[in-house]
Amino acid sequence: MPRPARSTRRRLAWGTAAVLAAGVAVPTLAQATPGGGPASAGASAGATAAGSAAASPASGHKAKNVIVLIGDGMGDSEITLARDYTVGANGRLNMDGFPRTGAYTTYSVDEKGKPEYVTDSAASGTGWATGNKTVNGRISKTPGTDKPLPTMLELAKKKGLATGNITTADLTDATPAVQNAHVRDRGCQGPADMKKCPRDTLGQGGGGSIAEQTVTTGADVLMGGGKEHFDQTVTEGPHKGRTVTEQARKAGYRLVTDKSGLESATPGTPLLGLFARSDIPVEWTGKPAARGGTDPQRCTTSNPERPDTTPSLERQTSRAIELLEAQQKGKNGKAKVKGHGKKPGKGFFLQVEGASIDKQDHVADPCGQIGETVAFDRAVKVARDYARKHPDTLVVTSADHAHASQIVPTDAKPAGLASTLITDEGRPLQVSYSNNDPAAAQEHTGTQVRIAASGPGADRVQGVTDQTDLFHTVTGALR
Amino acid sequence: MPRPARSTRRRLAWGTAAVLAAGVAVPTLAQATPGGGPASAGASAGATAAGSAAASPASGHKAKNVIVLIGDGMGDSEITLARDYTVGANGRLNMDGFPRTGAYTTYSVDEKGKPEYVTDSAASGTGWATGNKTVNGRISKTPGTDKPLPTMLELAKKKGLATGNITTADLTDATPAVQNAHVRDRGCQGPADMKKCPRDTLGQGGGGSIAEQTVTTGADVLMGGGKEHFDQTVTEGPHKGRTVTEQARKAGYRLVTDKSGLESATPGTPLLGLFARSDIPVEWTGKPAARGGTDPQRCTTSNPERPDTTPSLERQTSRAIELLEAQQKGKNGKAKVKGHGKKPGKGFFLQVEGASIDKQDHVADPCGQIGETVAFDRAVKVARDYARKHPDTLVVTSADHAHASQIVPTDAKPAGLASTLITDEGRPLQVSYSNNDPAAAQEHTGTQVRIAASGPGADRVQGVTDQTDLFHTVTGALR
Repeated sequence: MPRPARSTRRRLAWGTAAVLAAGVAVPTLAQATPGGGPASAGASAGATAAGSAAASPASGHKAKNVIVLIGDGMGDSEITLARDYTVGANGRLNMDGFPRTGAYTTYSVDEKGKPEYVTDSAASGTGWATGNKTVNGRISKTPGTDKPLPTMLELAKKKGLATGNITTADLTDATPAVQNAHVRDRGCQGPADMKKCPRDTLGQGGGGSIAEQTVTTGADVLMGGGKEHFDQTVTEGPHKGRTVTEQARKAGYRLVTDKSGLESATPGTPLLGLFARSDIPVEWTGKPAARGGTDPQRCTTSNPERPDTTPSLERQTSRAIELLEAQQKGKNGKAKVKGHGKKPGKGFFLQVEGASIDKQDHVADPCGQIGETVAFDRAVKVARDYARKHPDTLVVTSADHAHASQIVPTDAKPAGLASTLITDEGRPLQVSYSNNDPAAAQEHTGTQVRIAASGPGADRVQGVTDQTDLFHTVTGALR
Repeated sequence: MPRPARSTRRRLAWGTAAVLAAGVAVPTLAQATPGGGPASAGASAGATAAGSAAASPASGHKAKNVIVLIGDGMGDSEITLARDYTVGANGRLNMDGFPRTGAYTTYSVDEKGKPEYVTDSAASGTGWATGNKTVNGRISKTPGTDKPLPTMLELAKKKGLATGNITTADLTDATPAVQNAHVRDRGCQGPADMKKCPRDTLGQGGGGSIAEQTVTTGADVLMGGGKEHFDQTVTEGPHKGRTVTEQARKAGYRLVTDKSGLESATPGTPLLGLFARSDIPVEWTGKPAARGGTDPQRCTTSNPERPDTTPSLERQTSRAIELLEAQQKGKNGKAKVKGHGKKPGKGFFLQVEGASIDKQDHVADPCGQIGETVAFDRAVKVARDYARKHPDTLVVTSADHAHASQIVPTDAKPAGLASTLITDEGRPLQVSYSNNDPAAAQEHTGTQVRIAASGPGADRVQGVTDQTDLFHTVTGALR
């Protein structure tokens, strides 16, 4: 029997969360299940192990810091492909090492709340950022009523935590946007892009474009690509006539655009890193998959179109943690900008996205895809290394949805696009991208995806949960 | 850096296991990791949660009984498809409810032990049944040297446990065979099929065909299809001139071929259930996927070609448990056949396979595939219900490999075969089968697959492990 499409069975963390959630069903006060999801069938079964999960030191502990790392489009197939190619079938990636693991469901809904079995990145991100399902394309607003939903970054900031949000895509792209903004359509990235979001303009009482809302939400550390959207001119409200970049400077942000800028950033001054005009160029290159396959190829672990001055996601992540931690420790003197200074003992919340796993999967480029997965995995290592020294840190890694790529036998003849790679352990591996017209972008899939975690609250990712449960896992751990 | 393809890092359980393993590297005495696999990156990280796993009551406890349930070809995509269609995107299957969950890698190896990224069911089954990787097509024998490897069912029997092995395929098909037999090629199912296994014939000192070895290995409960292989005539050895069925009767087996036979079986007499000439007919029917897709369809939850007298996998599982448990309790009087009688306190080992998830995926039949997944899930419920009342039972469910089907957006145009279903919650769902030539069988994939467990030893399935680690999880729990 179908159950309601939204997860209304968990207590909403932080009373504030319900305030903005007008227009959607008010969550009940049903007791949270230890497995971390609506897995009713499992809650009472396998008593020994379930009991131990509930009683383990990892559950019930409060987290000081939370780092959420999202591999966009990084289904189990994408993870396995990156592992096979780099460390080998019997090797292990950094992301493989989390002690608590499960799967979560990723579907979105239509305007009436009925399930759509394949989500896009906007609806899926809204799921974990707000704990609510929404329609494909929407950024942290409800289905049907189109009302803003508070995000975990906003709630963390309100609670006094230092906050950060990093991506390899445009900073205004869906996955970072779901934490920073509330718009009807993900396309409304800059002031000139508001056609699909008439009610979100400042003139209509909305928050403006994603770029403008990113500045007004005001995370302490913001990094990604997408400078072109921030260089658009604001058309309404107090910043009319300024670019969004100028608006950010006015709000105290220091704008950096390359490695050396990133290295020179200091705590207490909010940081806006915009390292590319649109998406940050990928790290690896190779032949895209083709009809009938490719000759066996080795990937090139560099990209001539990626300037040397572009910081890696790994370094962005380590710098973000340094800056956010310095704020929480009260290091580096007093706040230089109001609201972005010392927050002793308060901890931080950071979201990190590896965005172009998805984008390279769409264009059926296995080398690009693997390189981005590996780059993301290095960012995971940064987070895990930090958590090892700071066990009061909850680290969660997952994906927003699964994707097209499949590892198939070397003698298979995929119906669409394919490529044969020679892996680092010297073995042939064929990848198929065949779930859409070969002339079009390959598609997301509706498969459940892996979620893995360490630290306080990590137990809640076990079993089968829903994407919306991650909101409760994070806010519950920070409560 | 690639690591050796075989998992040699874990202590082999039960000293006997190493004896037959001549020709493969001798396992080292490296300490078992709490996560249950070669996840070196994870062993020391996320200390809080990992520590709790090691210390939880579920680990370190001894299991009396073990039930291993394998959905053949049941990757996360196949699980999600069955969930979406039947209980809805927000519903939960029985298999979703396990408290401990992880993923395992499923690759096979070539004759030299180098990885092959996509496994078949013979090599993958050999992985969990023996703890060793082998080449595609081989049944519980080593790569290269082609030596027999002891299986968990054989080891359990040697230890005095009652044993059972059930499938919806031929009982001589790869997945049941990996517990019962040792042959060079999975095709050597009956005495007339030995062409590819010249060294496995009785005349050459081997164990004979898979059917013959199934009888000589002598599990207490054996059920499946494939009567045609057992009706072949033995050509060598003491049973020369008899059919394998006659050989089984001679060994004390009671042969049953339908529901009423199954119901009349009694403990103490070993049971051979052969419910179909070859594979047991599937439960559901519908239109197969087609080029350009199908009209939206609802599945028919019956199959005119499946006789009413055919027992479900669910009932096979519950009867197997009743019979095996009665033996262990010493119920129903004394042993009627030597070696198959009272085993007070010893417990049982049972493997259950839902075989035709894979077979329907190969032929791109989504309704057939979903029906078999649901039938398998009902068998999972039987096992979980038993374990709820008998917490000294380790229940593990997993797959042998992932498969072709992908849930794609309703407006996608898959390059190969596709079908649109209307799910039980009334929503359209498109499935793509496009990873091989549309005119050929669709293919397995190399993606890691889900493993889930409850009961003593369940902690060991967490994180990323390898298929071979399941051997150690089971034998470790029974030690």
